[in-house]
Amino acid sequence: MKSRWFNEEKLPYICTPLIGRNTDELIGELTSIVSKKPDVIEWRVDFYENIADFNEVLAAAQAIYENSDGIPILFTIRSDREGGESISLSEEDKVELISELCKSRFIAMVDYELSNEPSNIQRVREVSREYGKALVMSYHNFGCTPKKPEILKQILLAEFYGADVAKASVMPVDKQDVLTLLEVTREAVDMLTIPVLTISMGALGSMSRVMGWMYGSVMTFAVGANSSAPGQIPIEDLRSMIGMAKRFAGVKE
Amino acid sequence: MKSRWFNEEKLPYICTPLIGRNTDELIGELTSIVSKKPDVIEWRVDFYENIADFNEVLAAAQAIYENSDGIPILFTIRSDREGGESISLSEEDKVELISELCKSRFIAMVDYELSNEPSNIQRVREVSREYGKALVMSYHNFGCTPKKPEILKQILLAEFYGADVAKASVMPVDKQDVLTLLEVTREAVDMLTIPVLTISMGALGSMSRVMGWMYGSVMTFAVGANSSAPGQIPIEDLRSMIGMAKRFAGVKE
Repeated sequence: MKSRWFNEEKLPYICTPLIGRNTDELIGELTSIVSKKPDVIEWRVDFYENIADFNEVLAAAQAIYENSDGIPILFTIRSDREGGESISLSEEDKVELISELCKSRFIAMVDYELSNEPSNIQRVREVSREYGKALVMSYHNFGCTPKKPEILKQILLAEFYGADVAKASVMPVDKQDVLTLLEVTREAVDMLTIPVLTISMGALGSMSRVMGWMYGSVMTFAVGANSSAPGQIPIEDLRSMIGMAKRFAGVKE
Repeated sequence: MKSRWFNEEKLPYICTPLIGRNTDELIGELTSIVSKKPDVIEWRVDFYENIADFNEVLAAAQAIYENSDGIPILFTIRSDREGGESISLSEEDKVELISELCKSRFIAMVDYELSNEPSNIQRVREVSREYGKALVMSYHNFGCTPKKPEILKQILLAEFYGADVAKASVMPVDKQDVLTLLEVTREAVDMLTIPVLTISMGALGSMSRVMGWMYGSVMTFAVGANSSAPGQIPIEDLRSMIGMAKRFAGVKE
């Protein structure tokens, strides 16, 4: 993998979510998160109450940008189909909002789901590329861990669409599923030219957040102030475990 | 698994090796190890210089027993074929020495390798059973991680011989081998009635020492004072990582 978005020496990147419902809550969360120095902050905009007011969202983005000490912001409107909050925006509105944000300097990366219409995906790809934002194309399955070929197909689809990062986040039903996800990650890294980001969710999958990087996942999500998905663990613990795992594996920190 | 040797609430047990070349060194190591409260101490007797003097070995066993604060001692003469030191004893001598130790109160468990002659294995099984010692039957491969059926066969062989614990310790050649070992462990637990103990060795396999218990391995080896196999990590770090992993997995500690 060669990527201008990730410094190989620093892998895995740690990303903490930001889920405030309004700008005051967001700034409160940020204060606690920024002091823990994550590598990326994911603003889960689907939690934002006034998401329909684009000017307010842009103002919130600016406030986040100005309070995040240079940490890159990943802008994500997670759909309710894939574990996000229910919001009033149509898909066209979402693409419009994403485009507005891409045109701003407030975000560095944007997430868009592979389950969206190809035409919308292409629009998000074009505008994010034009304004120099990294595009994370994501696949989520909160019900199960599909078989290896199905997960690989989703990850390959992200590369097909020209994504900068291919993300797959799946729920294990048993212990074997966690191993399957790590195995898929390793195989995907061999097949793709773009970085791969994978997660086995829930309590059962929590160790995938600690050791996914060994199998090639470039980023792992941790709790800075609040959790945004099942199985996320506190950033301090995650960092400490990754540090020990690297030391024992003989990997330079 | 039902076993009178392991308390399910306490899994995984942590075992630290003792590798002194003489009784003074052993007692020195023990002082450092005992304060770290491992669940089991494995005396790797193949490191003991005067192993041919059975009376001296018995006296050393007594000294260890009296200085180990009640921590059960696992008595292991690892053969040089399976990663042990070169020693002068014949296989018959070893069986004789193991029998002497089984008759003493100084040890709680004994390790014997599956690669030995069936008649010797049967003798060790008989004497260990007669004197109430747990028998760990072990398989080691320092060259590679064989395919799943081959490892499973070794583990099943331990149950066939009437072992109390089936141990398999193999070397990963790549990252996939670590996942294979965890997968084998899970399958072995489904197939066997006795406890299973597995390790993926070396730096590459180090995380198997942290998370093997999730897949059913009852014991993990850690460095108390000195290491006895590649990839062993300090007991303090191992305990801290297992504690965090349990918390995140929602397992009571």
